[in-house]
Parts: sequence; structure tokens; C-alpha cells
Amino acid sequence: MTTTHPAPAPARDRADALDASDPLASFRERFLVPDPELVYLDGNSLGRLPLATRDRLAHAIEHEWGERLIRSWEERWLTLPEEIGDLIGASMLGAAPGQVALADSTTVCLFKLGSAALDARPGRTEIVTDVDNFPTDRYVLEGLAAQRGLTVRWIHGDPIDAVRADQVAEAVGPQTALVLLSHVSYRSAALADVAAITRVAHDAGALVLWDLCHTVGSVPVELDSAGVDLAAGCTYKYLNGGPGAPAFLYVRAEHQEALRQPIWGWIGRHDTFAMAPGYERAPGIRSMLSGTPPVLGLVAVQEGARLSAEAGIDAIRAKGIALTEFAIEVCDAVLAPLGVTLASPRDPARRGAHVALAHPRARELCARLARHGVITDFRTPDLLRLGLSPLTTRFTDVWDGIDALRRLL
Amino acid sequence: MTTTHPAPAPARDRADALDASDPLASFRERFLVPDPELVYLDGNSLGRLPLATRDRLAHAIEHEWGERLIRSWEERWLTLPEEIGDLIGASMLGAAPGQVALADSTTVCLFKLGSAALDARPGRTEIVTDVDNFPTDRYVLEGLAAQRGLTVRWIHGDPIDAVRADQVAEAVGPQTALVLLSHVSYRSAALADVAAITRVAHDAGALVLWDLCHTVGSVPVELDSAGVDLAAGCTYKYLNGGPGAPAFLYVRAEHQEALRQPIWGWIGRHDTFAMAPGYERAPGIRSMLSGTPPVLGLVAVQEGARLSAEAGIDAIRAKGIALTEFAIEVCDAVLAPLGVTLASPRDPARRGAHVALAHPRARELCARLARHGVITDFRTPDLLRLGLSPLTTRFTDVWDGIDALRRLL
Repeated sequence: MTTTHPAPAPARDRADALDASDPLASFRERFLVPDPELVYLDGNSLGRLPLATRDRLAHAIEHEWGERLIRSWEERWLTLPEEIGDLIGASMLGAAPGQVALADSTTVCLFKLGSAALDARPGRTEIVTDVDNFPTDRYVLEGLAAQRGLTVRWIHGDPIDAVRADQVAEAVGPQTALVLLSHVSYRSAALADVAAITRVAHDAGALVLWDLCHTVGSVPVELDSAGVDLAAGCTYKYLNGGPGAPAFLYVRAEHQEALRQPIWGWIGRHDTFAMAPGYERAPGIRSMLSGTPPVLGLVAVQEGARLSAEAGIDAIRAKGIALTEFAIEVCDAVLAPLGVTLASPRDPARRGAHVALAHPRARELCARLARHGVITDFRTPDLLRLGLSPLTTRFTDVWDGIDALRRLL
Repeated sequence: MTTTHPAPAPARDRADALDASDPLASFRERFLVPDPELVYLDGNSLGRLPLATRDRLAHAIEHEWGERLIRSWEERWLTLPEEIGDLIGASMLGAAPGQVALADSTTVCLFKLGSAALDARPGRTEIVTDVDNFPTDRYVLEGLAAQRGLTVRWIHGDPIDAVRADQVAEAVGPQTALVLLSHVSYRSAALADVAAITRVAHDAGALVLWDLCHTVGSVPVELDSAGVDLAAGCTYKYLNGGPGAPAFLYVRAEHQEALRQPIWGWIGRHDTFAMAPGYERAPGIRSMLSGTPPVLGLVAVQEGARLSAEAGIDAIRAKGIALTEFAIEVCDAVLAPLGVTLASPRDPARRGAHVALAHPRARELCARLARHGVITDFRTPDLLRLGLSPLTTRFTDVWDGIDALRRLL
């Protein structure tokens, strides 16, 4: 958007035509859309409610809880964490079965995995992350470091670009125990090179933990083939799992024997209901669980993940690219002349499914847009994020949202 | 039930009369009871579904999530952990506002509180609990001890009675950092003396952490006046919060500045949405939170807790005593001669709201009872638990359940 000769603004007809030819267009009908006038560009903070989820929750509440009561634990609920994990793993994470489970919040999952990784690298004193990583990732690492007397080594990357493998190579060394980075930057949507960075971390003898919060359900990733050790992410964004839905975690099969998470609870114990003396880990990924699984959250995630799996992650990715490309094209034409600059990578291969725009009055603009029925979000100090959710966002939403911003400016 | 001259068995009419004069009888109509023939004596594992909860969940799903979307975080959701915590604290825990919050699972809460307590007693090497404590409590402590090189000191109490203050006095000493016990035994329902044991722990310079899973919503407790440091418990039993509902934790106001929990996350940070560098704890109980609060679970707990608060903990306690007294009276008369022994305290002042019965074939009997429409639960090796939920269990349920067991024997 630094061009001085903006291209002519795409007409709204273009957006209509793109919607008409969108192979995923019909998925929007599978979601509750009570206010068709609302332009919702915040699916990367909280995804919309799938109709199937509403129905499944009603069934889970009324029948599974209300009628079957305690019997539902054996009949349906106990295996949900791994069932849903396998579904997500196979359909969008490139993970063979038995390596993904749903548990806790992203923060708690990052803590468990980070702690397990640090225990597996005794004597090493450093943890590597970047200053633009999502806050909870940074805070979890600071907490782990404080408790263990370790040092967090901060990569200062380009805020618009992702952390690069060469920057990681400079930061890691024989003292590095763990590298924790986000695959998709929550601010710029820039994509980090998972395979290359994982190799660099491994070359230094460190373990790598990937935050996939803005990845899952929007950008495919190949955890198994990239050699990733550990990953975690949330399910309430592109997976449309509902507010505060449980997170998922991935532990590479070959590490499951060696890595121990610190929160030993009855659900992660071998033969839970023996209630026996002495903690003995359950086999496999189940050992990463701790307390009683949050059933209502889980069933919502299951339905959301099924929708994404049905659409197919490659089709989702293609639409994510098309939506962000269109958004950038419109922004270039109508917002750049008004002082808005693009704060996401221009290369679609290096960008996830949202677009960040910088403007000094971003906070105020975000609030005013909301009053005009356009929901975006603000990230300090000056970013407006447009979250484009491939299963529910239309090209006309993109056009209308940007046009509303143009009118405000 | 060791008497050789059993009293005459109470007739079912007695149960009818007790129901007719039960001041809480009408509360049962506030719950979904789709199968009136089912005798549900397992509300201490999973409480029934309140009708208000079904309606509130439908509203939260359809309106708060489906329609208001991300806006609901500001409008309703962000403050739920403390709002519900204050409601539970004031109405049944004897806790002034600002000391209770909803978060995570009981297991994760116990881990956070246990870890914070151990950090606050550096140099001390022992944790005290009892061998009959709930499995997850024992496992959490084993995990904390393993990670820190500490020792768990096990009290071997009477399996039917609660751990006594003199037993704790024998176990604690200048090396004790933390005492973790359950107020109501999950097996026998025996009540520990919170105030006396807390004093004993304090006399040794230790902190005390109470598990209130089988307490909250069934037996009143006075955390503030008893000088309790820390407590946690679950909400899916007597509070009827739903399967895997989030737990609550209590941190005494005077400790909130000094105690730090280990899982530093964005929700526990001062000014969360500044997303600023460096973890700085939120003030007060909010610093105990870590990740994004599980909204569906929380709203369900809020409705369940409101029902208990409306009924009043003293009325609930009175009915819990009446139900268990009646259960024991019927058992004495009809089950004792068949080889069933009472495995709960006879003194109602020392017993919570369930009754444990011992029989060598308890596992098989529990399964057969379920096939006859009587839901109880089995606890290894030989216990059948009858959970009597004061808001939903009728005296006729007690009579019918025990009569079904008599017929099986």
C-alpha cells in the first residue's frame, strides 16, 4: 500500500462474483447468522456458531447430561479428548492418530508442554521465543523461567514478517532447551517456516513447541513430517468451537514415553477408576490429561472440527488466500490513500487468514466500525485486524467492511 | 449395622411422609427429571440438570455466542469467574468477596494452589495428606513432590472416619510446607474438622489446602473464620454445574499478595488486553486465572450455584442429614442382616451427604442395580456409595434404592 498510483477500486460486483463462484459458499448456511447485516470480521477471535453445534449441545445437555446422567461418561464422554484430537490431527495437522488430545486451555497446555520439554533438557538454561509472540505464550515462558532460574532469550523480528529460521539459528545454542513460536502471528498473520525452524532448533539439541492457535482450521501444517516435537492451540477461532473451548495439544509419538507433564491428575493416570495408590501414567497421549474433561466445551469443538474436516483444509486454505488477497486489493485501492498501511505480508504464501491494517487511530476506528455493524478487532498500539473465516466470511463482507472503514476515514 | 436385633424396617409410607414435609421438596421440580422411575443416587458424582441451566445455556449459545459473538466477552463473560466465585463464596463457603474464582479443573486448581503454597515455604521438604484422599489430590501432590524433590507424608487414618487433628499434629513438623486434605471424604463422607486441623497446620508453620469437592453445595464451611489459607473444589456434584464444569479456588485475602501461582497466562495478567511485554499479576484473586475462561461451563455453574444459594446451605445441610439418617435407618433394618455394613460415620454431625455401604460383591451389585434403574456408584474394593443430593433426591428414592438392593441380595 505504498504505491502512489492506486489501482481502481474493485466494485462490489467483483465481491458478488467471487462469492458466486466460491466452492465453500454453502458452508455459511451451516452456521447461525441471526443478523445478516452484521459484517463479522473477527472469526479469528471467536468463530461463529455452527447449527450442528447448537443441536449437538442441546442433545448433550438434555439427553446426555439430563437423562443419561453419570452413565454418559462411559457411554460417550470419556474418550472425547482423544477422539476429537485424532479428528483434528488427521484432517488438518498432519498428525497420525494417538498424538493429539483436547485438554484445559491453551495457556495450561503450553505450560504442561513447556514444563515437560524443560525437564527433558536438564542443565540447559535458555528458552527462545520472540517479542511479538502471543502474550500468553510469553507469560507462560516467563513463569517457567522464573520458577527454574532460566533465561528467556527474545528474538526481535520484523513485526510484519514472521520469525525466520536464520534468526532462530542466531538465538539458539548449546544452552537452548526449548523454542516456542507461533506458526501464524496473531498480529500480522505472517507464517513461520515450521519445518526449517524445527530443524534449526533440533540442530542445537533443543525441543520445539509450536503455537497453532491461528493455524488450526485455516492453514494446513504437517507436524509429523516436519519433525515437530510439541504443539498446542485453541479451538474457538477457526474451528468455531465456542467461547473458551478446550485447547488441543500434540506430543510426537516418539517423545511420549520420555516426556512427563507436571500436572498429575486422575484422568491422566493409567486405570483412572481403580483410584489406586501412586500415580502411574496412562499410556500415550492420555498421560497429558489431568482433570475431568470439560464436556460441553468438547462436544462443541467436535462439531466445529467436523465442519472444517468436511470442507477440507486445502479448500479452506485456498479460500483464506482468496479472501486476504481480495482484502488487500481493496485496501490498496481505497484505504492506502487515506493513510492506512498494510501490516501483514503481501505474499499469500507467507500469510494466514487475517489481514492487519495499521492506522494511528485504529482503536477509535475499531470502536466506530462496531457501532456501524462491522466487527473487527484492535491490537495495540495501532492495528486493526480483519479476521477472514473461510467457512463463514463472504467476499462481500470483506468489501463492505473495508468500505465502511473508508467512509469513516 | 452390627446390631443383632434389627429394628423393624421403615415402611415406604414413612418415606412418603418425609417427602411430604420436606421444605426443599419443590426444588426437584426445578430440575429435568425425564425418567421419574429412575432412582438416581449419584448426584455426588454428577448432579442433575437444572431447568434454568438448560434455558440459560440455550441463551448463552444462541444469543451470547451465536448473535453477540465476540462482543459478549465485554458484555457478560469476562467477569464470570469472579462473579460466580463471589456467589459461591458468600452463600456456602463463608468467604468474603474477592477470594473465590472459577478456573480450570479441580486438578489444575490443586496444582496451582499447591505449587504456590510450596513456593511460599521454601526450604521445607514435606507435604502432608492422607492415603484415603481423593486420587487426583494424591497424584497432584506426588507430581509436585517429584518435581521439587520433596516427600509426601501419608496419614493412615481410619477409612471410615475422617483424618483427625491429632493425627495431623503427629504428621506435621518444622519440615511441613503444606497440608492437603478433603473436608468430606469421597469414600466414607466423613467430615474433617477444618478449623482444628487448620490450626494444627498453622502451629507447625505450614499452609493448608482444603479439597471441597464433596462439600460445596452440601455442607457449609466457614473458610474465613476457620483461618483457611487455600481451598478448591468442583462444581459438577452438589452444585449441579454439569459434566466437567470448571472448578473453583479460594485464596485467603491476606495471602493474595504473597502467593504466586505458576501458570502465568494472559487472563491472570493485569490489563490483559494491553498484551504488553512482561507478566504483571492482576490484582487479587484474578491473578489465579491463566487461560481463556470456559464460558459454557461457567454459565452452567452460575445457574446451578444460584439454585443452591436460593435454597440456602443450612436448609440443604439439614436435608442432607435427614436423607442420610433415613438411609442408615433403612439399611440397618433391611441390609445389615444380608451382610451389608455401613462404611460412613453414624454421627450425622461427622458425615456429609452420601452414605457408603460395604459388601464384598459391591462392584457387581452396583452394575445390577443400574440395570434395575437404580444408579449408585462403586468405589474399589467393596464400596457402594449412595449419593443423596438435597435438592433432587427424595426420601422415597432412598427407600426404593435400598429396597432394590435388598431384593438383589
